Amino acid sequence: MSEQLTLYLHKLSPYSQKIEIALIEANAPYKGHHVDLSNKPEWFTSIVNPVGKVPAVAYGGPIVDPENPSPLSTKIAESSVILEFLADLYPDSGLLPKDLVLRAKVRFFNDATTKHLEGPFYDFVIGRGSYENVVKGIEFVQGLLEEGKDFAVGDHYTIADACISPCLARLKVVTETDIGKFPVGMGSKLGEELKGPKFTEFTKYVDRMLERQSLKQTYDKEALITYFKTVFMRAQ
Amino acid sequence: MSEQLTLYLHKLSPYSQKIEIALIEANAPYKGHHVDLSNKPEWFTSIVNPVGKVPAVAYGGPIVDPENPSPLSTKIAESSVILEFLADLYPDSGLLPKDLVLRAKVRFFNDATTKHLEGPFYDFVIGRGSYENVVKGIEFVQGLLEEGKDFAVGDHYTIADACISPCLARLKVVTETDIGKFPVGMGSKLGEELKGPKFTEFTKYVDRMLERQSLKQTYDKEALITYFKTVFMRAQ
Repeated sequence: MSEQLTLYLHKLSPYSQKIEIALIEANAPYKGHHVDLSNKPEWFTSIVNPVGKVPAVAYGGPIVDPENPSPLSTKIAESSVILEFLADLYPDSGLLPKDLVLRAKVRFFNDATTKHLEGPFYDFVIGRGSYENVVKGIEFVQGLLEEGKDFAVGDHYTIADACISPCLARLKVVTETDIGKFPVGMGSKLGEELKGPKFTEFTKYVDRMLERQSLKQTYDKEALITYFKTVFMRAQ
Repeated sequence: MSEQLTLYLHKLSPYSQKIEIALIEANAPYKGHHVDLSNKPEWFTSIVNPVGKVPAVAYGGPIVDPENPSPLSTKIAESSVILEFLADLYPDSGLLPKDLVLRAKVRFFNDATTKHLEGPFYDFVIGRGSYENVVKGIEFVQGLLEEGKDFAVGDHYTIADACISPCLARLKVVTETDIGKFPVGMGSKLGEELKGPKFTEFTKYVDRMLERQSLKQTYDKEALITYFKTVFMRAQ
């Protein structure tokens, strides 16, 4: 694995964080480069990702200053695509199991995270989605967790865990701080509900994921709270 | 590959068709079983897919009547997950290339098909999306096609082609018949626009895909038109 890998990320982006977590879990060498999305540099959209989004990866080619990306590297966008790419690049990392059925379970888990949890939860936070849909999503994801197992799928950390973890961290912040564009108190209510016996398996899984070094290393809780406060500011 | 594979499908579902096309392209043995979604059998939701959607696959276990599925088979749902599963199951089929970067390109193409083409096109057909978004989606997908290549990615038929083909068949029907909940004439207008020089590459690709035996074999154009007429019936 001598090819260089540069990850273009935003420090507060949960999608960027998925990739950085996976890289750390795979013990993969990479160079992370923060992109200022509020003042997007021209080279980013013209050379790295025409859609202008992070995360994006530049793989291979010469080692260069990330702000002067080489046309010789392959550029890969979309977090779901990059997660699979990393699993292909590091087949012995365990990011995807070798077993065909377990691989399908990982992918099903990621699909469920995206559709049933992330979508409804981020909609809820910005005031466009219902509380009930978040609870339903959590129930769905919990239903996929196997009792007594440490990880989303199988006996090893996979891209399923990397995919969901940034959302779990944000879920924790929202339930602890009640910051969001939902009616006052609904974030705290969700936190109380998650402490109940119905969600024991999910909550234990969340706690395990939030304890991972890969998560802590890629996540500035205070910066996230400050950002949430700015974006979701409201009269208290 | 001695394990049995049963595909639960609906004959008019584009998502089912993706899987059936991929199976045929991989020359894979399978048993297809049509599920009546308007009168969903109890065994389907209780044993095959709790979400009640097709396509779903039962893989492995004993050979049984599809209407009496074995608890010993693995059940896999979600077309994107099943496509990857088939590529894993048949690594020499070419459904996914061996090359890491090409694999990422296939996945990016599928992501683009889903987000930029299928979503806007099906929304347009049911009267909830704009004409402009369909055209933009087609432009995006065309931008991914390499000039002079026969397939979506690389030199071989992959799950990228299988993923987009059912949508292309429906796009063709809508542009030829003008059937849909959009304003009268907009389907035909799209057809005219696609005949222009701007969309030559896309149209040539569509034609190639619609000529595939795997598509023809899994697609009853007249039945689809009859169905569309029923669903989108309007005063003429």
